Amino acid sequence: MTRTGRGQEPREGRTAVILVDSQMGENIGAAARAMYNFGLTDLRLVRPRDGWPNPAATAMAAGADRVLDAVTLFASVAEAVADLHFVAATSARPRHMVKPVRTPAEAAARVHAQEQAGARCGILFGAERSGLDNDTVALAQEVIRIPVNPAFPSLNLGQAVLVVAYELFLAAHGEGETPPPLDYLGSEPATAADLDGLIGHLTRDLEAAGYFYPPEKKEVMARTIRNIFQRSVWSGQEVQILRGVVKALGRGRPPRQ
Amino acid sequence: MTRTGRGQEPREGRTAVILVDSQMGENIGAAARAMYNFGLTDLRLVRPRDGWPNPAATAMAAGADRVLDAVTLFASVAEAVADLHFVAATSARPRHMVKPVRTPAEAAARVHAQEQAGARCGILFGAERSGLDNDTVALAQEVIRIPVNPAFPSLNLGQAVLVVAYELFLAAHGEGETPPPLDYLGSEPATAADLDGLIGHLTRDLEAAGYFYPPEKKEVMARTIRNIFQRSVWSGQEVQILRGVVKALGRGRPPRQ
Repeated sequence: MTRTGRGQEPREGRTAVILVDSQMGENIGAAARAMYNFGLTDLRLVRPRDGWPNPAATAMAAGADRVLDAVTLFASVAEAVADLHFVAATSARPRHMVKPVRTPAEAAARVHAQEQAGARCGILFGAERSGLDNDTVALAQEVIRIPVNPAFPSLNLGQAVLVVAYELFLAAHGEGETPPPLDYLGSEPATAADLDGLIGHLTRDLEAAGYFYPPEKKEVMARTIRNIFQRSVWSGQEVQILRGVVKALGRGRPPRQ
Repeated sequence: MTRTGRGQEPREGRTAVILVDSQMGENIGAAARAMYNFGLTDLRLVRPRDGWPNPAATAMAAGADRVLDAVTLFASVAEAVADLHFVAATSARPRHMVKPVRTPAEAAARVHAQEQAGARCGILFGAERSGLDNDTVALAQEVIRIPVNPAFPSLNLGQAVLVVAYELFLAAHGEGETPPPLDYLGSEPATAADLDGLIGHLTRDLEAAGYFYPPEKKEVMARTIRNIFQRSVWSGQEVQILRGVVKALGRGRPPRQ
């Protein structure tokens, strides 16, 4: 998948996040925050253990009120997904089902393509410890498995929502406005001639200072210096500054003996 | 960037995470947890406000002790990055500096390439509210900007570390073991002939039941039914089950009048 930015203005994603049997209000709040960070607003709760609204969720959402205010509550997963055309279930473990397993990036690309075609999509997330049961996974077309360190695979609910929401955001908007390789802050990038001028200036001053010794090493020493300055690109202003530096150093040099 | 899995065994990442002036122990713990979820273990703290160790960090790290036990403390960013060859600074806002700005995926690819070549790399994260100051950003070769919803751009520290660690994991391991498109659970995928057998069986029974009416519609009705079963791939076992379903339905059918 190519992930270059497309320069378009991010809009709000349509994808629903469905939290099933979630226990801690803090986790619901963290999920809401992660959703809104990546432009999602449709949060659906199925049988939240501590009921709804939940002050712990509000505290943790850190201002994602837009999401919490619009939460919808359901008594069953079937009701929560009834209006959706495509549903994916997150799962950390293999299921004994013939169902495609996607990475978050693959799933996000598929969700985005279907939303572009007018479909409404949703992602199911299970309870903190136990995840989704098999009957709930069976309600989804596909399974999403987040790749993690096998030695420490326990992503919490907020983290799992964050990864999926982040990938949905990238699928919809690329990586956002692709920044230019360098912002020259009003200056022009230095040309090869600018750089040659600097290197020439430096080499002359070094020559005058007796730097190139023994003389037969001069060629390789000069090439090394050129390569140092050639390693990166500079702004015209930066090259001017470097010439000023060379000049200033020359002024401070004691007269040759 | 292509993100296909490469089937290699995930190993621990070498990249250092450097938290500068972090305030809340909870955030340090969340960062440690996110790091270890994605295989990172080198956590460096520069001037943590509440000192170290910090019980709030341990509670939040939820078992990422491997990371917390190895934390190193520094009095300055310069000391924290002294042994590193390549440093990137996360920043949510533009800086008045001529410095490349990368997306997390771009930065992760560059870090991975340099680590493959033997370099040690680190990522700087600033304090919760204020981020990194310009003098600290100046110590980095590049800036990482995480793409977010412009209406709600405030990622917390743990979330920012999670996104960067996730991208580093993907850069190093692809998306992990790429799951097969479908796991047929011991059965073979159904062949076209298997499917034809099912559709033929179904069509014959429907014909016998007088389903295709009026007769001139039969062709298009039969094609619609074929397309329903042709939409996806099935296991041989599933096709056998469907044939059993067709057979059973036929048995239950009342005799034609």
